[in-house]
Amino acid sequence: MFPKNAWYVACTPTEIDDKPLGRTICGEKIVFYRGAEGKVAALEDFCPHRGAALSFGQVCEGQLVCGYHGLTMGCDGKTVSMPGQRVQGFPRIRSYPAVERYGFIWVWPGDAQLADASTIHHLEWAESPDWAYGGGMYHVKCDYRLMIDNLMDLTHETYVHTTSIGQKEIDEAPVTTKAEGDHVVTRRFMNNVMPPPFWRANLRGNQLADDVPVDRWQVCHFTPPSHVMIEVGVAHAGKGGYDADPKDKVSSIVVDFLTPETETSMWYFWGMARNFAPKDKALTAQIRDGQARVFAEDTVVLEAQQRNLSLHPGRKLLMLNIDAGGVQSRRILDRLIALEQPQAQAA
Amino acid sequence: MFPKNAWYVACTPTEIDDKPLGRTICGEKIVFYRGAEGKVAALEDFCPHRGAALSFGQVCEGQLVCGYHGLTMGCDGKTVSMPGQRVQGFPRIRSYPAVERYGFIWVWPGDAQLADASTIHHLEWAESPDWAYGGGMYHVKCDYRLMIDNLMDLTHETYVHTTSIGQKEIDEAPVTTKAEGDHVVTRRFMNNVMPPPFWRANLRGNQLADDVPVDRWQVCHFTPPSHVMIEVGVAHAGKGGYDADPKDKVSSIVVDFLTPETETSMWYFWGMARNFAPKDKALTAQIRDGQARVFAEDTVVLEAQQRNLSLHPGRKLLMLNIDAGGVQSRRILDRLIALEQPQAQAA
Amino acid sequence: MFPKNAWYVACTPTEIDDKPLGRTICGEKIVFYRGAEGKVAALEDFCPHRGAALSFGQVCEGQLVCGYHGLTMGCDGKTVSMPGQRVQGFPRIRSYPAVERYGFIWVWPGDAQLADASTIHHLEWAESPDWAYGGGMYHVKCDYRLMIDNLMDLTHETYVHTTSIGQKEIDEAPVTTKAEGDHVVTRRFMNNVMPPPFWRANLRGNQLADDVPVDRWQVCHFTPPSHVMIEVGVAHAGKGGYDADPKDKVSSIVVDFLTPETETSMWYFWGMARNFAPKDKALTAQIRDGQARVFAEDTVVLEAQQRNLSLHPGRKLLMLNIDAGGVQSRRILDRLIALEQPQAQAA
Repeated sequence: MFPKNAWYVACTPTEIDDKPLGRTICGEKIVFYRGAEGKVAALEDFCPHRGAALSFGQVCEGQLVCGYHGLTMGCDGKTVSMPGQRVQGFPRIRSYPAVERYGFIWVWPGDAQLADASTIHHLEWAESPDWAYGGGMYHVKCDYRLMIDNLMDLTHETYVHTTSIGQKEIDEAPVTTKAEGDHVVTRRFMNNVMPPPFWRANLRGNQLADDVPVDRWQVCHFTPPSHVMIEVGVAHAGKGGYDADPKDKVSSIVVDFLTPETETSMWYFWGMARNFAPKDKALTAQIRDGQARVFAEDTVVLEAQQRNLSLHPGRKLLMLNIDAGGVQSRRILDRLIALEQPQAQAA
Repeated sequence: MFPKNAWYVACTPTEIDDKPLGRTICGEKIVFYRGAEGKVAALEDFCPHRGAALSFGQVCEGQLVCGYHGLTMGCDGKTVSMPGQRVQGFPRIRSYPAVERYGFIWVWPGDAQLADASTIHHLEWAESPDWAYGGGMYHVKCDYRLMIDNLMDLTHETYVHTTSIGQKEIDEAPVTTKAEGDHVVTRRFMNNVMPPPFWRANLRGNQLADDVPVDRWQVCHFTPPSHVMIEVGVAHAGKGGYDADPKDKVSSIVVDFLTPETETSMWYFWGMARNFAPKDKALTAQIRDGQARVFAEDTVVLEAQQRNLSLHPGRKLLMLNIDAGGVQSRRILDRLIALEQPQAQAA
Repeated sequence: MFPKNAWYVACTPTEIDDKPLGRTICGEKIVFYRGAEGKVAALEDFCPHRGAALSFGQVCEGQLVCGYHGLTMGCDGKTVSMPGQRVQGFPRIRSYPAVERYGFIWVWPGDAQLADASTIHHLEWAESPDWAYGGGMYHVKCDYRLMIDNLMDLTHETYVHTTSIGQKEIDEAPVTTKAEGDHVVTRRFMNNVMPPPFWRANLRGNQLADDVPVDRWQVCHFTPPSHVMIEVGVAHAGKGGYDADPKDKVSSIVVDFLTPETETSMWYFWGMARNFAPKDKALTAQIRDGQARVFAEDTVVLEAQQRNLSLHPGRKLLMLNIDAGGVQSRRILDRLIALEQPQAQAA
């Protein structure tokens, strides 16, 4: 269950720089490639001639050429030409709105008429020289909503990420959750705690003492369809915490785009945007490697959870206060999904 | 088709010494671990909070702590605590009777009310210093009843185990089968034959000549739900065979616990208990390695047989005299399984 | 969908020289072996005793002995003997007409009464010292009819086999297709073109200049159930092309036997028969290696096509002029398959 009338991150630009990419998004088998002037295009990955996978073809002068019999396909899904054939009557294949922005390729797997590029989630940090970004992607065999639950409740860090970002004080600190329209925010503040290894390294990376107590925060933002941006950071204790002067803190944004592949699998685009030492590429790589290890720990837990839920589909789960972030995010999704049902659209 | 109101071997103690073990037994997904004072516990492998696999958690001071959000679970399936939560209302998860005995962990996957540890199969050799035991475990993709058939009819040794324990005289010797209550015994005696390689090695291991004719025996005992103990041995020919004086023979018990995982897969705990040279660990290892090779030969044959039977589910098989051991064992199982059906229990 | 009353290539002789071979042909799980005097036999791969796979057994003095309990099976599917048993009442298993001819083992998976070895596709080149043959086999996860389409329309060479036999002129040359009875022929002639790498090598192999224009031809012959023989060659331009004097041309026959395994998988026996330098074994090996690379390119494309068609089973494909060879071949197959339906046979 996922909304289809939404912009999802489909891939990163480098994934389509050299050749077409076949990827299933929200159950749609799509080929992504760079068309004329490098502009991204997204089409059904199905040649109208004999059903070959267009993603096995090549891009020639901005047009996708099927790797089986040389049919040349336009970015609009209309066949442009085929050796020795008149192609006017060829059935059109589906094309999907696709946009390259903020260092990602975005796709709209639903009704193309409703796609409006101005509604793509704005990523301020992606356009500013004061910020740096590094990240990666995992294929995870779970419902994307289990990942939303995971990210909107960071209590799990204490148990899943014991050697990096977890610390006992996380689940001792109360959490508050607030929904406003389609935006859910979960906040947790831990004051006067010792920083865990991941944050000690970042304090050092920002020329701050790493062996003193800090005020730590986590502010998780969910926006549909499945973006979770988490403001995280630590400030030397007593300096104002979240609102401390930049010279006393180190902070960043954990970036999570959760793109459904099927009902029980997803593409997990994860990363971190930071506004300190933005030119330090070694630091970017070090943070990315650390995140890769942390998020790999999540995937193990979530895939086992998915297997359990698939075995017991009717079983009721608990909804505790710590789950409020996930629960409220799912409520928004349920509403958006319901709006896409035929009866809703007829009304 | 398997009885659930029965004690099955679930694992060996070393499998749960360091961390919890998730294993499916008779279709039940169970987590096994050592609780307070090292006592074995078995629970549904499903955290009541959000369905995480408890087997990915840790044991802290004798209690299982979920590796996702730190819920602490009691051995009775009642949540003990969870950081920041009142847990009284949490739904109980299923707990399974489990006992550590004779070097194995036993579980009762059925109705806990009916479990009585005094009915666990008694293994005399497991408690005596005059005996040594070595063994291993295989996951086999076949109905556990195919393995019962296999072990209650050793005719196959001639064909499946040609280089170790097979010899032509096995299938030339008549076999007798007798059922008494829930106990089936199949006996075969081969007199004045040359010992095959496996037995030559054991004769030498017991300081007996290995190049002379022997009287060889195989006495297979089935008891429900799926234990097969096989008394095997050779005595120098003419010394009394099975009843010969210990100084003239070498004998042991092939131990087989067949634990269903699903309808078409099983956990095969195999080993050998012997009452000669019980302190000779090198001999124990040598015998275990030999058995590992022998039983690996069986798994190849049985998995292919299972594929054939799954392809032709309705096809009638033959029931020859040599199959009587398996046939009678299955008859006992059918009766026990029928007793567990709701209508039988209502009556 | 495949005719079962037909001769299919099942395997090559070397596949059964040392031990029995289990292989599924047209949905039938069959064991192939060499019986008395090396004569090929084909039986259901299912021991009538307990369903063991006979292909795991051994051939002893021309008879197949089951590897589980030593049942000896006759080539007619009647049990010959079993240690300690009377076998007269044992149910017969199915035997399949099988013939070794032309360097292949042929099997008739349908009604044995209708099998007539004289209808096995005649391979003239297989019996002549003037010809050499080399080939191989691939397991391909697609409906065998996708491979017929592929081979009856070589337009794809330009796109799939760009570095070996493809050249732009292929899809610029018109193709003609003709069906006569159960024989479909597709012809394409490309005059005065430069030979692609595969043909340059063959020209050199036949002591002909490889850097001059040639007339090239492809004549594809389909005969049921799924044989495609393709006459291919090049002659120095202007020397008569297909009809040129042998000293001016190099030609061969691409041999394709497409044997269904299931509805969506097949055994692809491919090779090349040539009538030049027939004693040159190094050339045979070189051609075979080249073909192996070429046909591996096809399997990648066809397996992706099959995945697409399985996802969209109802979707209509185009039937262009270049597809006429496949379309007409499928029409013949449809007729043969319809004839095998019960109502057709009753009429």
